[in-house]
Amino acid sequence: MSIIALLTDFGTRDWFVGSMKGVILGINPAVSVVDITHAVSQGNIRASALALMASYRCFPKKTIFTVVVDPGVGSSRRAIVADTGFYCFVAPDNGVLSFVLREQNKPVVYAIENDTYFRKSVSTTFHGRDIFAPVAAYLSTGISPVTVGPEVKKWITISWPELLIAENDVTGVVIYIDHFGNAFTNITSESIKHLLKPTCYIPGEPTKELPIVHFYEEVPDGEACALINSAGYLEIAVNNGNAAEQYALAIESTVRIHCR
Amino acid sequence: MSIIALLTDFGTRDWFVGSMKGVILGINPAVSVVDITHAVSQGNIRASALALMASYRCFPKKTIFTVVVDPGVGSSRRAIVADTGFYCFVAPDNGVLSFVLREQNKPVVYAIENDTYFRKSVSTTFHGRDIFAPVAAYLSTGISPVTVGPEVKKWITISWPELLIAENDVTGVVIYIDHFGNAFTNITSESIKHLLKPTCYIPGEPTKELPIVHFYEEVPDGEACALINSAGYLEIAVNNGNAAEQYALAIESTVRIHCR
Amino acid sequence: MSIIALLTDFGTRDWFVGSMKGVILGINPAVSVVDITHAVSQGNIRASALALMASYRCFPKKTIFTVVVDPGVGSSRRAIVADTGFYCFVAPDNGVLSFVLREQNKPVVYAIENDTYFRKSVSTTFHGRDIFAPVAAYLSTGISPVTVGPEVKKWITISWPELLIAENDVTGVVIYIDHFGNAFTNITSESIKHLLKPTCYIPGEPTKELPIVHFYEEVPDGEACALINSAGYLEIAVNNGNAAEQYALAIESTVRIHCR
Repeated sequence: MSIIALLTDFGTRDWFVGSMKGVILGINPAVSVVDITHAVSQGNIRASALALMASYRCFPKKTIFTVVVDPGVGSSRRAIVADTGFYCFVAPDNGVLSFVLREQNKPVVYAIENDTYFRKSVSTTFHGRDIFAPVAAYLSTGISPVTVGPEVKKWITISWPELLIAENDVTGVVIYIDHFGNAFTNITSESIKHLLKPTCYIPGEPTKELPIVHFYEEVPDGEACALINSAGYLEIAVNNGNAAEQYALAIESTVRIHCR
Repeated sequence: MSIIALLTDFGTRDWFVGSMKGVILGINPAVSVVDITHAVSQGNIRASALALMASYRCFPKKTIFTVVVDPGVGSSRRAIVADTGFYCFVAPDNGVLSFVLREQNKPVVYAIENDTYFRKSVSTTFHGRDIFAPVAAYLSTGISPVTVGPEVKKWITISWPELLIAENDVTGVVIYIDHFGNAFTNITSESIKHLLKPTCYIPGEPTKELPIVHFYEEVPDGEACALINSAGYLEIAVNNGNAAEQYALAIESTVRIHCR
Repeated sequence: MSIIALLTDFGTRDWFVGSMKGVILGINPAVSVVDITHAVSQGNIRASALALMASYRCFPKKTIFTVVVDPGVGSSRRAIVADTGFYCFVAPDNGVLSFVLREQNKPVVYAIENDTYFRKSVSTTFHGRDIFAPVAAYLSTGISPVTVGPEVKKWITISWPELLIAENDVTGVVIYIDHFGNAFTNITSESIKHLLKPTCYIPGEPTKELPIVHFYEEVPDGEACALINSAGYLEIAVNNGNAAEQYALAIESTVRIHCR
C-alpha cells in the first residue's frame, strides 16, 4: 500500500480536495491519501515549503508528496516531479519544493509533460485535479518518474532566510506561526551551541528577554519561553497561550539569542 | 475496494463526521471514506447540491455518495437512495440531489425504509450516523439498492437557476462563492458561444467590465477577470485576490456576458 | 484492517496531524486512520473527554483511540494506555479519558514507558508524533498493551458535573456547545423520567420556557426547543438557528427541567 500526502491552499470548504481524492482513487484504489494541510494561505509558497519541510520525514519511504499551491495555474509555469530515491514530490515549479530539495543529495527532477497521465480534459484553473492528482496516482501505482517528461537541471528556488551568527549572539527571524500562536524561527540548535548561557531576546516596546527551556510547562501559564521545537528550530511560545498575539510576532520578526 | 464520499454541514469541530466513519468502518472495514466537504453552511441545500454536482464525476464507478444536509432530521421527511447504474447517492429527500439527478438518464430512486440496515437504536437528531452511514456502508458491501425500500417515482427537486439567453447577451447569476472568493455562475461556455468578442459585465456602483480570459494570471495581481472554471461554468475571479469581497458579489448577484 | 481514531487540539492549519499519520502508516500501512476532531480548543481536557465519550461507541471492536490534548507535553506527566478488552485508549494521563473510563467495567491501565515503541528521537513538544502515534500504530499491529509499560492502579480523573435531582425538577448544566450552537447538557433521559409533563427552563433575563420535543422541526424556524440528543443527553437547540448565541448559553449555564 503506497501513500500520497497532499498539501494545498484549497481549504476544506469546497469540493476541491475531495475531487483530487476521487481522481486518485479512480487510478489507484489501494493508495492511502493523507492530508498534510489544505489551509496554507492563498498562494503562500514560503509557508507551503516550510510545512512540507517540517513534516515530510515522518512519512515512510516511497511516499508521494503532492503540493498544489499554484497561483500560476494555467499559465506557462512548469509542473515537476522531484525524485530523491526515497521520496517523490509532485508540484508546480514555483519554489514550493525549495526547502526539501536543499536537504537532498542530488534529486532528479522531471518536467511533467506526458499527458497520458493527465485527466482527459484539462481545465485551466484546477491542475490539482487534472494534472497533479492523476500524475501522483500513477506514480503510486509504480510507474517510473522518468516517464512523466524530460529531466530538467534547473528549477525555481526560494531562498532560505540566513542566520547572522556572531561570537556572542545569533540573529534570526520568525518563519512560521502555527495554530497555537507559536512562532517558529530559522534558528537551529546547532547554530547556538557556541553561546554560553544563551537567552532569547525579542526587540520591541518594551523588549523582552525569554528563558530558553525544554518544554512549555517549565514556565507558568501565560508566560513566554523559547525552546527547540519538534522540527529542530527555536520557537517562541507562551505556555497555554498565544505567543504571536502576545508579542506581536509576525513572519520576519527579528529574534536574537545571546549570552547572559 | 469501494468508496463512500461524504458531504455534510456537520463541520469538523465536533465528533459527528468521525462517528459516521466509525459506523461505516464497523460494517465495511475495507471501504475508503472520502470527505467532499463538511463545511456547507447549516441546512444549505442549494450549496450542497452544487458542491456535489461540481465534484461527483471525479469519482470512480460504484462510488456511494452520502449527503447529509438535513434540516428536517427526525421529521417525516423521506430518506432516499438514487441509483444511476454508475453511482449511488444516499440522502434525505429534500432536494440535495437535484443537480446531479437532472444530469442522469433515468435514475432509479428508492425510499429508505428497511431498518435492518439502520443502527440498532435510531436517534431523532443524527440520522447521518444512524441511517445514512450504515445504509451507505451496506451498499458498499454490495447489497442491492432494491433492498433498502420501495421504488419511488417522485422526489423533491430544487430548481436550477435558468439563464436569459438573447442575441447579444446572456444574463446569469452567481450560484456559489468558493474559499478563494471566486464567484461561480450558472453561465456555461456553451451558452455564450454565439456571442462575438464576449466581455463580462457586473452591475453595481460603479459597474465593472471584465475581460474573459483562460487563466488567472492573464490579468495582473489584484485585477478581476472572468473565465470558464473547472466545473465548466463562468467564474468571476481576482488574480491572487478575492473577487466576491472586491465586487460585493453574493449568491444571486447578476452577471451579464455581452458583445463588445 | 484495524482502526486508529485521532482526537487532538492540533487544528488542521499546520502539519501536525499529517505528521502523526505519516508515522502511523510507516509502522502499520494497513491501518485506517479516522479523525474524530482536531478542533478542540487549546488544552481543553473537558471538551476532549466529552467528544470522546460521545463518539467512541460508534467504532468497531479493537479501535485504538489516540487522544492528544496535552498541555503538559514534555513535563513529567505520564502517558497511558487503557485497555477495556473491547477498545484501547492512548493518551496523556491528564483526565482526557475520564468520561469513557467511568463507563467501563475494570479497564486495565498501563503507563507508557517502553521506548522501543517511540520514534528514534523524541522531541519535548510533540509527543503526538513521537510517542502517541507510534505506540498506537504498534498496538494496531497487534502488540499487547502489557508491553508498553507497567500497569498502574490510579490515573487522573476529572469530575463529571453531577445533576440535582428533586421530586419536581432536575437541574443540570451545559457541558458542550456544538458547531450548530446546540447546547448539550448533563441531563439524561433517565434522570427526568419521574417528571410529569416536563418542560425546560433556562434562567436569564428574561427567563425562557422551552418545550421538550422529539426532533428540531417540531418547532418553527428560529424557535428554541429541548430534546434528547444523539448522545442520550438533553440538548437546547433552535430549529435552523444557533441556540447558544440566541440564549447566551455557555459551558456551565444552568438548565432546569420541571413539571408544568
